[in-house]
Amino acid sequence: MTSKAVHADPGALAESIRVARGAQPADLVIRGTRFLDVFSGEILPGDIAVHRGLIVGTQESYRGRHELDGRAFVVVPGFIDAHVHIESSLLTPVRFQQAVMPLGTTTVIWDPHEIANVHGLAGLRWALNACEDLALDVFVMLSSCVPSTSPELALETSGAELSASDLASLREHPQVLGLAEMMNYPGLLSGSPDVIDKLYLFQDLPRDGHCPGLRGRDLNAYGAAGIHSCHESTSLEEAREKLRKGIHVLIREGSCAKDADSLLPLLDDYSSSVVGLCSDDRNPLDTATEGHISFIVDKALRLGHEPRNIFRAASFATAQAYGLKDRGAIAPGFVADFCLVSPRDGVHWHSGLAVHGVYKRGQRVGADDLAHQALGRTAAAAAVSPGPNIRLDPVAVHDFRVLAGTDAASQGVRVIGVRPRQILTDSLIATLPVSAGEVIGDAQQDVLKIAVFERHHGSGRRAVAFVKGFGLKRGAIATSVNHDCHNAIVVGADDAAMAAALEHLRHIDGGIVVVDGRGAAEALPLPVAGLMCDRDPRDVAATLEGLKAAARRLGCSLEEPFLQLSFLALPVIPSLKITDRGLVDVDAFRPVSPLLAA
Amino acid sequence: MTSKAVHADPGALAESIRVARGAQPADLVIRGTRFLDVFSGEILPGDIAVHRGLIVGTQESYRGRHELDGRAFVVVPGFIDAHVHIESSLLTPVRFQQAVMPLGTTTVIWDPHEIANVHGLAGLRWALNACEDLALDVFVMLSSCVPSTSPELALETSGAELSASDLASLREHPQVLGLAEMMNYPGLLSGSPDVIDKLYLFQDLPRDGHCPGLRGRDLNAYGAAGIHSCHESTSLEEAREKLRKGIHVLIREGSCAKDADSLLPLLDDYSSSVVGLCSDDRNPLDTATEGHISFIVDKALRLGHEPRNIFRAASFATAQAYGLKDRGAIAPGFVADFCLVSPRDGVHWHSGLAVHGVYKRGQRVGADDLAHQALGRTAAAAAVSPGPNIRLDPVAVHDFRVLAGTDAASQGVRVIGVRPRQILTDSLIATLPVSAGEVIGDAQQDVLKIAVFERHHGSGRRAVAFVKGFGLKRGAIATSVNHDCHNAIVVGADDAAMAAALEHLRHIDGGIVVVDGRGAAEALPLPVAGLMCDRDPRDVAATLEGLKAAARRLGCSLEEPFLQLSFLALPVIPSLKITDRGLVDVDAFRPVSPLLAA
Repeated sequence: MTSKAVHADPGALAESIRVARGAQPADLVIRGTRFLDVFSGEILPGDIAVHRGLIVGTQESYRGRHELDGRAFVVVPGFIDAHVHIESSLLTPVRFQQAVMPLGTTTVIWDPHEIANVHGLAGLRWALNACEDLALDVFVMLSSCVPSTSPELALETSGAELSASDLASLREHPQVLGLAEMMNYPGLLSGSPDVIDKLYLFQDLPRDGHCPGLRGRDLNAYGAAGIHSCHESTSLEEAREKLRKGIHVLIREGSCAKDADSLLPLLDDYSSSVVGLCSDDRNPLDTATEGHISFIVDKALRLGHEPRNIFRAASFATAQAYGLKDRGAIAPGFVADFCLVSPRDGVHWHSGLAVHGVYKRGQRVGADDLAHQALGRTAAAAAVSPGPNIRLDPVAVHDFRVLAGTDAASQGVRVIGVRPRQILTDSLIATLPVSAGEVIGDAQQDVLKIAVFERHHGSGRRAVAFVKGFGLKRGAIATSVNHDCHNAIVVGADDAAMAAALEHLRHIDGGIVVVDGRGAAEALPLPVAGLMCDRDPRDVAATLEGLKAAARRLGCSLEEPFLQLSFLALPVIPSLKITDRGLVDVDAFRPVSPLLAA
Repeated sequence: MTSKAVHADPGALAESIRVARGAQPADLVIRGTRFLDVFSGEILPGDIAVHRGLIVGTQESYRGRHELDGRAFVVVPGFIDAHVHIESSLLTPVRFQQAVMPLGTTTVIWDPHEIANVHGLAGLRWALNACEDLALDVFVMLSSCVPSTSPELALETSGAELSASDLASLREHPQVLGLAEMMNYPGLLSGSPDVIDKLYLFQDLPRDGHCPGLRGRDLNAYGAAGIHSCHESTSLEEAREKLRKGIHVLIREGSCAKDADSLLPLLDDYSSSVVGLCSDDRNPLDTATEGHISFIVDKALRLGHEPRNIFRAASFATAQAYGLKDRGAIAPGFVADFCLVSPRDGVHWHSGLAVHGVYKRGQRVGADDLAHQALGRTAAAAAVSPGPNIRLDPVAVHDFRVLAGTDAASQGVRVIGVRPRQILTDSLIATLPVSAGEVIGDAQQDVLKIAVFERHHGSGRRAVAFVKGFGLKRGAIATSVNHDCHNAIVVGADDAAMAAALEHLRHIDGGIVVVDGRGAAEALPLPVAGLMCDRDPRDVAATLEGLKAAARRLGCSLEEPFLQLSFLALPVIPSLKITDRGLVDVDAFRPVSPLLAA
């Protein structure tokens, strides 16, 4: 458990006292500024004195070795991302901090379950190693669901499985805060021993939840099992029930799952102490163009929310929920993580958020410093994948064949219905043409083939089914980022393009690929586990922008096709998903055929 | 760090899930009731299911092995006393719980610094032992200031001194939450090594504050040193500054120090997550007649405060501040500590609080059960003092002589000015008659003699000075309860009565004594350290009532003369105090003569 005012030695503690009393100059003083107090909810005037990484004085007059005119700003606590999969930024942690720190994020709570699904315990160790000694404070929740469903269900194939005893080996690591999102809520509700063991192992620590749509007595059971949070509410009513049942609601604005508009009405003076904000899965393009936690704050301000509430949710509330007692407030003894902000128009908060500067432990966050730290890491072990990425035999066109169930000229099929900007899917029905005994995708109806190829063990296992919502008229999109097992997934207008896309993915050893069906391919290679790369976030954002444009040229109508594709294999999010083992009816939690019985 | 939903074994965790889902009956169901949700601030309807000491379900329908009609009640979280010296109840912990649990208190955070001042480390060990396996959850903050001032200042003599290394030996005890109130704020501000060492030793845990009147940069320094709370604010303005500086304000209503009227306006929807309630020092009579934490809740309701705010401050806010993640809310996974309450008139909350039943870990708190547990302890080690109580030579009338400074017929003296219902004193001046070279107390001016005799080491050290405010016309009052060093203190209308009172105190080996100056004495013996007794709280309250009546018959005008007397030796509370070493000017933090220079 962290605490406020942790000092390196007794001498440093005594020095904090002297500086706070004004007997010795502070390292830094923000003069004549105002700050948001998350205890009283007021915006208060005065100097802010910072020394050795801690805030040592507020509301009084101070002198510092460095002084900054703070009259134009309001100082607010640095933003805390309560739940993030850094892998979804496609960046290694040292590159992730380059992307998010200038936007005001100073602490994140990471569930590294993407790399854990690829590389297991070695992946978790890689993650813990990769977030050591960063400017950004990265705390880790140990992944509870690797793979996302119980292995005995055989619904999907991950690169690794993590048992309670695997997690036990990392429980005491200083960066570890608790157990990450318990996605296997059906397993929890049915008392699966694996789930119970993990919950019991972490019962003295925070245990995160993930329970889209869970309500009533089943939601009670989830809380009674020790779950303290959930970031999966999509409706206000659902979120309100969770809050009323003592579950910290984390309002998420990812690239795919965007819940802020629905859930922000939950926030008021009372609840802002127990509601947090998170990004979950957010791509580098959205972070670059819209923001990170700052984006939710900005949105809330524009919607007319009180600054005191959204800024508290963005900081202190999450710090308290996770036992991070040393941060989240602008007050003596708290870590000097803060942002200099103002209303965008300088006057009215409902004009939105402008971030003018970010400080981490009293140091100004500078682009050059972050880039420098990244370069220092590039050659180091943290930039290297903990194992081989893609174990896949050469892919052929006939691998995508779907044989019709009867001799009829058409075939009824189950279709995954993509919902734009959501990771929930619909379970649809369509009728497709049959040619030479094979069911054919139909771009006119926008019912296309989708396939998942197991990529971790070289098993050759694959599944082909149908999806609606991508709008591709030609070509294909493939990626090795594919929640949570991260097998290779591909959607395409024809089998040849799909095969070409997967072959290119194999060639670059993981990443994101768009092929146009005429021989041209564009790609973002992701050499760390087929999930992350060690490149400047702006370069990655630009490459992604190019890939999105390429997809649009192929007819793709989705705003973010890659992340949406990446969630179609996650069999813990309703309703219909596809894994390497076939179509999964998530509501029934069982595999189903893509073909309807005649 | 505690967490919600801690289970004895994995099987119990799985059982909680089954019961919450309704697959198995709960131990107890409160049917058709309403409860206060401290997350949303709403009062919500539904059943509450309790199993194996935890709440497992709310807001839904349940069946239980025991069912209770809850329609007439609102269920609120059990009250948490954020800061208490159990010794001030004059009761051992097992008797204290008998007094407070039926009033709704289910958890207390104890600083056992009274017994620590008498018996040092042995006293702390006694305290930890005495609160094991009680029905009441008693957490301990280790006493930071034993004695209350640095020994090198030689301002007072305690029975023991506790160094940082003494405290280190008990730091890891499972009942220990952190470091108790840092009363030596002058020592903190001046960087006293002993204070710094203690703060540093506990820097990963909560460190309580105690800083009456501290403001401005000095208050910043207090927070920068790691202090997270203060219960010593007496004005709203002072409390507001502390809150704004990130210090949890604990609103106190003791027997002597009564701050609720002044501080309750601090409480609103926003701050009710960071403001706590405490009793600090409260005698058994006030607890029996007015209530405990329930008294502050009742007062707040009568003043028109929103139930959601006062009930959150009484429970969840303190639980959060001290890292007690398992309690303070009515929600699945939280410990089943709760009260069945209603407005006193059944309709309007501003009629005050009625407590109809209290549950601890799902068990109804019953007077008989508590009495039974007390009887079980009476013969046990916890009821026995950890050492001898009173080491004092026989007291004689001439021990109280004060020689005048000059030959004049009168003498200017410094006088401790007692403020009714406060532990702050005024530093007054008076002129007293001199007879045969001795300064004489003057009951007409109500300026009486007061004396402190060292009682721990048999040193014979004593001090005599003057006090205004008791109003005694004859007789004397003496006690071995005398914060914080707990030497023997006596106030009286004449020297003979004072000597008789101390002699009687010696005779009963510690307690509270009233002598009428005509040979009659009444007493409450306190055989545990001269501070506590192992008797039924009602008997103790009745005895105290008798003693108060006896004091009133002697002319005493104070509502609570014994506690007020007990705080006159505490040299960390301004302005003028008396210890065995003499008068202390607390503002200047130095000893002063009772006599003014001519």
